[in-house]
Amino acid sequence: MSPEDRLASLNVELPPPPPPGGIYTPIVYQGSLIYVSGHGPNMPDGTQICGKVGSDLTMEEGYEAARQVGLTMLATLQDQLGTLNRIKRAIKVLGMVNATPEFGQHPQVVNGFSQLLLDVFGEENGRAARSAVGMGSLPGNIAVEVEAIFELHEA
Amino acid sequence: MSPEDRLASLNVELPPPPPPGGIYTPIVYQGSLIYVSGHGPNMPDGTQICGKVGSDLTMEEGYEAARQVGLTMLATLQDQLGTLNRIKRAIKVLGMVNATPEFGQHPQVVNGFSQLLLDVFGEENGRAARSAVGMGSLPGNIAVEVEAIFELHEA
Amino acid sequence: MSPEDRLASLNVELPPPPPPGGIYTPIVYQGSLIYVSGHGPNMPDGTQICGKVGSDLTMEEGYEAARQVGLTMLATLQDQLGTLNRIKRAIKVLGMVNATPEFGQHPQVVNGFSQLLLDVFGEENGRAARSAVGMGSLPGNIAVEVEAIFELHEA
Repeated sequence: MSPEDRLASLNVELPPPPPPGGIYTPIVYQGSLIYVSGHGPNMPDGTQICGKVGSDLTMEEGYEAARQVGLTMLATLQDQLGTLNRIKRAIKVLGMVNATPEFGQHPQVVNGFSQLLLDVFGEENGRAARSAVGMGSLPGNIAVEVEAIFELHEA
Repeated sequence: MSPEDRLASLNVELPPPPPPGGIYTPIVYQGSLIYVSGHGPNMPDGTQICGKVGSDLTMEEGYEAARQVGLTMLATLQDQLGTLNRIKRAIKVLGMVNATPEFGQHPQVVNGFSQLLLDVFGEENGRAARSAVGMGSLPGNIAVEVEAIFELHEA
Repeated sequence: MSPEDRLASLNVELPPPPPPGGIYTPIVYQGSLIYVSGHGPNMPDGTQICGKVGSDLTMEEGYEAARQVGLTMLATLQDQLGTLNRIKRAIKVLGMVNATPEFGQHPQVVNGFSQLLLDVFGEENGRAARSAVGMGSLPGNIAVEVEAIFELHEA
């Protein structure tokens, strides 16, 4: 199954691809790689999942926010690449959780993003190198932000 | 216009290229890419712009600090490469703001760095993939730190 | 001397290579590069060095934690690559310190990691581009987390 087939089988709704909220571009091509800008948890209705994980949000709600970051990034990738089928594999993920100073379950939160990559790109190609860490603050108080590097198939 | 011509037309003063403040090197060459170490907002007089954005510094002061980080990085790039004209384009920027837990305007702050890249490298080549996020603390309480990846022209 | 010879001469004990604590893989090969996931300060007895640098831990204790992160990453690299001698040089290090908001000596802390790379890979090949910054929180309250990119020798 292709990434697009797998995504269709998940029966999820992607949010609109977010316009850049600053002076940057959503992705940059470099050789066979694409560098993807930090994405937040955008909902189809235009709102974002906000709040600090560990106080405003539980770990489970953080997981859902991280998954929503993944759906938002997929929307950008579809929009920029035309189709997710151009993506060969995930290389590197930096998962940044807007957490309280005492929070410690960042990997469990960012798994919401990483599981979606497995669901769409497969057990092997979806599994990236990763760091999952706690930020002091994030733009607009979003709960999770993720940036990533992917590799494309040869043209 | 070349990057050096554009920089000259901005009529700005670069700070001295900062010596590494630890066990690292300012840039690493890898293929056509350079990985640039995190830079802070160094002033020509040797001081740095310090404080937390959201309490000690306003968003606008944070923007100026981010721009100063850009000037500091340009000083390093000139020093290391001989000339900015060897740079083809910006690939990836990680903008790290020393912010209060409640601060939410990181993109607007990091735009101070990103706008300088546009001014020097042009609208297309200066526009990188980017994340703009809030750190719990930064070295010496500097207001902003940025690391970046650039691509060089073929030798 | 080879990296393995240098490591042997250090007379240190590596912890066991840590199993991934989430949905990711310890390293990803991409061309001649490897992207290494975030690692923490694992001890040979299975515990980790925890606490916030600046309150629970001093700068010197943070340095030791960062060095322990390096030993943990070397364990992963040996396990994944078979031998450290396949590594040509360090490219990029992101050193993330679990620090209090007022802490400012992140470079001195992350030097514990970076000095180990010099000890094992040599003064030139061990010296990477680097950022050393303060996180709001880290998984399981570990004191330091580091992710890195290395270049391998041609096969």
